[in-house]
Amino acid sequence: MIEFSIPAVAADLGDQIQQKIDNKTKPIGALGQLEEVARKICLIQRTLTPSLNAPHILVFAGDHGIAQEGVSKYPSEVTYQMVLNFLRGGAAINVFCKQNQVALKVIDAGVSAEFEPHEALIDQKVALGTESFLGSAAMTLEQGVQAIQQGAHIVAEVHQSGSNIVGFGEMGIGNTASAAVLMHLITKIDLEVCVGRGTGLDDEGLQKKIDILQAALDFHQDHLVDTATEYEAGPAQILWMLTTFGGFEIAQMVGAYLKAAELGMVIMVDGFIASAALLVAQALYPEVTSYCVFCHQSDERGHAAMLEFLGDTPILKLNLRLGEGTGAALAFPLIQSAVSFLNEMASFESAGVSKA
Amino acid sequence: MIEFSIPAVAADLGDQIQQKIDNKTKPIGALGQLEEVARKICLIQRTLTPSLNAPHILVFAGDHGIAQEGVSKYPSEVTYQMVLNFLRGGAAINVFCKQNQVALKVIDAGVSAEFEPHEALIDQKVALGTESFLGSAAMTLEQGVQAIQQGAHIVAEVHQSGSNIVGFGEMGIGNTASAAVLMHLITKIDLEVCVGRGTGLDDEGLQKKIDILQAALDFHQDHLVDTATEYEAGPAQILWMLTTFGGFEIAQMVGAYLKAAELGMVIMVDGFIASAALLVAQALYPEVTSYCVFCHQSDERGHAAMLEFLGDTPILKLNLRLGEGTGAALAFPLIQSAVSFLNEMASFESAGVSKA
Repeated sequence: MIEFSIPAVAADLGDQIQQKIDNKTKPIGALGQLEEVARKICLIQRTLTPSLNAPHILVFAGDHGIAQEGVSKYPSEVTYQMVLNFLRGGAAINVFCKQNQVALKVIDAGVSAEFEPHEALIDQKVALGTESFLGSAAMTLEQGVQAIQQGAHIVAEVHQSGSNIVGFGEMGIGNTASAAVLMHLITKIDLEVCVGRGTGLDDEGLQKKIDILQAALDFHQDHLVDTATEYEAGPAQILWMLTTFGGFEIAQMVGAYLKAAELGMVIMVDGFIASAALLVAQALYPEVTSYCVFCHQSDERGHAAMLEFLGDTPILKLNLRLGEGTGAALAFPLIQSAVSFLNEMASFESAGVSKA
Repeated sequence: MIEFSIPAVAADLGDQIQQKIDNKTKPIGALGQLEEVARKICLIQRTLTPSLNAPHILVFAGDHGIAQEGVSKYPSEVTYQMVLNFLRGGAAINVFCKQNQVALKVIDAGVSAEFEPHEALIDQKVALGTESFLGSAAMTLEQGVQAIQQGAHIVAEVHQSGSNIVGFGEMGIGNTASAAVLMHLITKIDLEVCVGRGTGLDDEGLQKKIDILQAALDFHQDHLVDTATEYEAGPAQILWMLTTFGGFEIAQMVGAYLKAAELGMVIMVDGFIASAALLVAQALYPEVTSYCVFCHQSDERGHAAMLEFLGDTPILKLNLRLGEGTGAALAFPLIQSAVSFLNEMASFESAGVSKA
């Protein structure tokens, strides 16, 4: 129903890649984290001469019933308004994609208002926003499966058009709440560590958000007890977590990650919500993270611990907390630099430079 | 003799800049450090609509007598060989400048071999390398002043050609030793903290480097006692430090920083050696740092403490330790992003987005 087949990366190339990196005219290891990014991309693309073609960022937008409970500083209507802002080119993600020549696609995964048809908007609306998970599941299982399939579908299209590197961003008032609960359930890290200020809650607002999310967990506790009996949650439990507490944009991102890995694409991982979707994806298919370049550590509380759980160090740490895929768009030139040094720098031999 | 006149930045614009940033369609502060960079550039350029024109990186190369004492893993001839590599386009700085459309100029400040004339090489050679500061001053006062003037001169030319943003890189086997001593003398931080592995010394090599540098400090201790009697070192003492322990590429960078600030340019600060030259420059003219955007924190021990002394947080922390201006070249797209979001993003009013 939502099966993916993710190939292993080319671990057997490891030594050859390292040798090529170490023969470049620089001290051993002197390009630091760029060397790790270069190595990862070689493994993904199964080559010593990788290339990044037609980079894309897909921004998935969806509304959240939980936003009505007061977990965000902004009203839900801002999701709709910001999508219009994306379509007009006025948001941060537009500016950064344009600057760095990254193609941008905007996807209505489940915004709670109808859009006029627009050539730049991809209609994958599952429903007019999720239900509040304070009193029911956010979505049905059918909706969750549909969303995963739709996320996979759009990535397949982007790949088909010639792209081999893609990042996922999101817009959805209330979605840090959703992401925090998913993080708590999957990583088993304390809820208080997972919940942050989102778009800028004060101390009181933050405490209210924690209380609401704890109440939601309490409401669903009977099912949680069931899942806790398993040492590690199986696919059915992960899907239950996603559909109970997730959002349509998060579910579509889950499918997008898995399809991108299946297709051997390099995946640029953005901030807190995008990483929460990856947490869900890797709980289903752990090998997906082999395809991921972690782009930035968000200022949102919880993201540092989430990245630690995922076992990687991001490229940027600029105290961003904006979402939209902005961290990925900003990191793209550095990912390109990792590929470029590997392909274009001279070796000690070719340049006639003495070794240490 | 080496007078500079550095104007104050436009601190009176602070409130207007903040208001413009906060009206962009994003939560307050959500672009983190990019907002700080945008603010700084507005202050430097005295405008709410800054622009970055004809970015340049100038790489200053010079040889060091101290390299003969065994402070580096690589032989001095690598300085010359790497300059040839720069001229042929094979080094990391070539690749990153090309990718990010940053113009690159290579300057012979004092390499210990003569070059054939080359259209891309700027001849500002003070001498065929410095003396070893283990037994004498690295250069004469006249050479130091000449180097500062030459560094200023090339920046004035670059500015004249239409550039308003410039970064400085370096190549010089042995120059982390020189930079470490300058750091120790100016910041008064323990020598052991200032001295690092450079191009990759092992523990034994590192200890030997520390011992040699301590011996050099002991050799010059009579003069050091004189300078230590002053609460803060005056210009004559700073010049003594620079000429006794510096390098020609470091001295030219000192002049380059000061001239760039005098001309109101945005200055991209690279790694350990480039920052050590800035330490010297700001000891002469503290206001120079108002013009500086700190691009990266090097993996070289000492750089973190040096940045703390200089009071700023760099944009990147990628464990680079390569020099050549590579950190500046890599950070340039992010500096451009800071300017672009300020100029191009919609405001809440113009986009019709609800505020918090």
